[in-house]
Amino acid sequence: MTLEPNGVATANGNGAVNGTAALKAAVSAPAPVPAEGKAVDLSHHLSLVARSRMPSPLKDILTYMHLPGMISLAGGLPHPSLFPFQSLSTSVYHPSTVLDPANPVPPSDGITIDIARKAQPGNVSFLERDLQYSGAAGFKPLAEMCKALTAAVQPPAYADWDVLINCGSTDAWQKIVTLLCERGETVITDEQIYPSAQAAFIPEGVKCLPIPVDDQGMRPDALCAALDAWDTATQGPRPHVMYLVPVGQNPLGSTMQAERRKEIYAAACKYDLVIVEDDPYFMLQFEAWDPLAPSDESATPPADFMSKVARSFLIHDTEGRVIRLETFSKTLAPGLRIGFFVANSMFIERLLRGTEVQNQQPSGFSQVILGETLARWGTEGYLQWCAGLCEQYRVRRDWMLDALSSELALTPSAETMVATINGRKVLSFTPPIGGMFIWCTVHFDEHPGYAAFVGDGPDRRDKEHEFETAFWKKLVDARVLVTPGWYFTPYEGQGVPSSNNEPGKGYFRLAYSFESKEDMEEGIRRLANVMKAEWA
Amino acid sequence: MTLEPNGVATANGNGAVNGTAALKAAVSAPAPVPAEGKAVDLSHHLSLVARSRMPSPLKDILTYMHLPGMISLAGGLPHPSLFPFQSLSTSVYHPSTVLDPANPVPPSDGITIDIARKAQPGNVSFLERDLQYSGAAGFKPLAEMCKALTAAVQPPAYADWDVLINCGSTDAWQKIVTLLCERGETVITDEQIYPSAQAAFIPEGVKCLPIPVDDQGMRPDALCAALDAWDTATQGPRPHVMYLVPVGQNPLGSTMQAERRKEIYAAACKYDLVIVEDDPYFMLQFEAWDPLAPSDESATPPADFMSKVARSFLIHDTEGRVIRLETFSKTLAPGLRIGFFVANSMFIERLLRGTEVQNQQPSGFSQVILGETLARWGTEGYLQWCAGLCEQYRVRRDWMLDALSSELALTPSAETMVATINGRKVLSFTPPIGGMFIWCTVHFDEHPGYAAFVGDGPDRRDKEHEFETAFWKKLVDARVLVTPGWYFTPYEGQGVPSSNNEPGKGYFRLAYSFESKEDMEEGIRRLANVMKAEWA
Repeated sequence: MTLEPNGVATANGNGAVNGTAALKAAVSAPAPVPAEGKAVDLSHHLSLVARSRMPSPLKDILTYMHLPGMISLAGGLPHPSLFPFQSLSTSVYHPSTVLDPANPVPPSDGITIDIARKAQPGNVSFLERDLQYSGAAGFKPLAEMCKALTAAVQPPAYADWDVLINCGSTDAWQKIVTLLCERGETVITDEQIYPSAQAAFIPEGVKCLPIPVDDQGMRPDALCAALDAWDTATQGPRPHVMYLVPVGQNPLGSTMQAERRKEIYAAACKYDLVIVEDDPYFMLQFEAWDPLAPSDESATPPADFMSKVARSFLIHDTEGRVIRLETFSKTLAPGLRIGFFVANSMFIERLLRGTEVQNQQPSGFSQVILGETLARWGTEGYLQWCAGLCEQYRVRRDWMLDALSSELALTPSAETMVATINGRKVLSFTPPIGGMFIWCTVHFDEHPGYAAFVGDGPDRRDKEHEFETAFWKKLVDARVLVTPGWYFTPYEGQGVPSSNNEPGKGYFRLAYSFESKEDMEEGIRRLANVMKAEWA
Repeated sequence: MTLEPNGVATANGNGAVNGTAALKAAVSAPAPVPAEGKAVDLSHHLSLVARSRMPSPLKDILTYMHLPGMISLAGGLPHPSLFPFQSLSTSVYHPSTVLDPANPVPPSDGITIDIARKAQPGNVSFLERDLQYSGAAGFKPLAEMCKALTAAVQPPAYADWDVLINCGSTDAWQKIVTLLCERGETVITDEQIYPSAQAAFIPEGVKCLPIPVDDQGMRPDALCAALDAWDTATQGPRPHVMYLVPVGQNPLGSTMQAERRKEIYAAACKYDLVIVEDDPYFMLQFEAWDPLAPSDESATPPADFMSKVARSFLIHDTEGRVIRLETFSKTLAPGLRIGFFVANSMFIERLLRGTEVQNQQPSGFSQVILGETLARWGTEGYLQWCAGLCEQYRVRRDWMLDALSSELALTPSAETMVATINGRKVLSFTPPIGGMFIWCTVHFDEHPGYAAFVGDGPDRRDKEHEFETAFWKKLVDARVLVTPGWYFTPYEGQGVPSSNNEPGKGYFRLAYSFESKEDMEEGIRRLANVMKAEWA
């Protein structure tokens, strides 16, 4: 996205805006000039279920309800005077709030949002919209804010896109699986994948095609090679859906930059793939960690936050083959259970038909609280809040990286930091520039007892896993808990080993989002001590 | 359910409690003595998808997190200090509130529910439970209240039952379809069914087996006949799932009494059916309308409300083959988007696994507001509120029935009221004793122009539908909107006509839940005038 002198955003795919002033202009300007091209016809990607959905006949009747003078005995809604809630009130931070990460005391002031059943004449929205059945499309002002946010930050490179509110990304991803996938098909994923994302489609009889990754996530060369080598006779239908977490991938912590995205997108066009971009950590994109410089603990958001982030696949999407899953769970609160889809209008219409029978609409309480918060903050205020939030997590990332650096001797090697003990490699990782996780490779092959333990027999993989598990248990005994790497192994079908370790290597995931600085430091110290004892 | 002298509720299937005092005892007593029998094994009813779900490996790690002294770097939750909401407050009516139906002014007082991030030392529930990821089982106190409510009002007749929170009954029914149904199967339904309930399974390749009804809903003799006549060669797998709305059926308005339920339940056991009891109108069960007595407009709830209602299929369910869908949409507000399942613990466990990937959990805002409301009211207060609510809808029902009675000459005929014009039958209906709807049969065969119009040719059904549609359009022209009966036709597969009218009859649904008394009266007047002109 670049910004024209008149402050209108246009998509050109370079993924940068010129600082906050320009962003402010973009956000406050009229809607950006839309891209002119339309999405290509992707209806062949729809599942049989998605193709079979029909609008409810009850919708037809709505047009008649609005005829002048009509008395409707057709509705069937409960009477809003009988909802016993009189008011709803919340207090939300000013979007400019900067907390001390080490001691995050809530500010004494805040923005009060009061919603009452009789606040002012004609204000019936609390009863008749927020508390009533209100339609699968979600509250219109909220949907419009989600659309404005997308248009301002990362407008798709085609014209006929739309948004649809959902109940958070778990809900969203299940809806996408139902929209696109059939039993016997295979979804393209990264080499490691969040287990709950897999659990949405494995029971549906859908498998993974894991693609090798590097520090930016999925490798386009490996993707093309896997698809070129695809054998429909033995592997089933050619994959047509790709699931990606492009920023702060869970568990890999990798973030994909614009050039890599263009390559992946080109492959998606070539092989006719739909890219599902699950992007909960989009707003958590950090400056690179500098192992030699002291970390800034002030958490003051930079003025040019948005100029540095890698933008959505949407800005490269000339054909309408990206479905973006955006959520407020990481930026505001998971308890809201609200996110939104961005996709071509054909997919959005099918998702709306699905939503009507899948869960009707998100909570009215959540929708009104979110909608009023965004209305008070404005799109610009929301981005300001996210810039501050990003810094909070940047500081937390630095706490953990600093602790790793001080407990284990780290040596940079390309993008990777390597810890050695007595000249033996122990641990390596790429310091993340997004998200909440550090993905660590454990070099068991340099452990003094490893080779003898695993041997070279046919049970080698079992012995490797046994060794890895024993190591993880030693961490538990030392009272530091890490997430085992094998939790994230993609399911490739029956008979394929449930571990995709490189021989001699193991993995675990560290999260820096939640624990205090002191606990992170103590946790990493315990981890380092176990490693020192083991690799000594 | 009967109540022992010690105030303990036990299930014996007669579906009555001895008034409010006994109910109070039941509600405030310790948990009722559970039935001793266990559910029979119904796992053969599970769909392949439901059978294939696995617990997330991330759950395994939870046990380790709670080891003393553990530092967890495994979690990956966002930090609750970074949720910008400081407080949440709502004001809810006292459960004893009685509104004037004609002029429902909110009471000047109410119960204030304040939830703040720092309300008291150690009170971290707002941030760490309400706003955080909190698990697919829902908030434990809320789930416990739903269980207590079930135990107090209509405890299942077997021991190992449980509840599970969901996002309202649309969500619940879709989850049940996924739990139980396979493509090519058939669901047993009433002769008329709510379109959105159908729309949840038709795209999945599941059809309806509609069973003839009477004023209590599904007829057991017709059910048994249809299942005895089932031909797997031409009709596919024998139906094993029954979908019922036993109270105030939408659109039929019928309510099923205890004897009928026992007969249906016996058939379910005989034919190995799972009964899905979608019961949103359970709390809206009224005294019969008396066409000769003036209607009571005071809406004062009776002291013995609970002694008169028909109880859930649960109280007859010795085998654990009932899945109850209960919701707060009609009793508190649809915007909450919260309901709960009651079922055998095997089904509940499978539904929980599904919920984990389908939508994680309902809104935390909704859960905390609902949970706190129920906690302040108590189970007894909730039932008191429902008794008052029921009266509100009883008054509204009477408004409409009185209007029908005054605009059209009604003559009782068994359970049915019949309106005649010039000695010709025009309209007939059974005055409902539950829910929000009156289902009207229109006697087109007594319309002076009907026989000539429809003729006796092969296009007779089309002509009938054309006649019916023209009549409906005349109502629209007279500015009264009713829901056409053909909206509710069950889908029996391709090639089966999309209308199940009895020859010469048409249907429409009237809703008395929403419009004012004046509009109901005027709407019924317009309806009557069209009929008088047509049947003259």
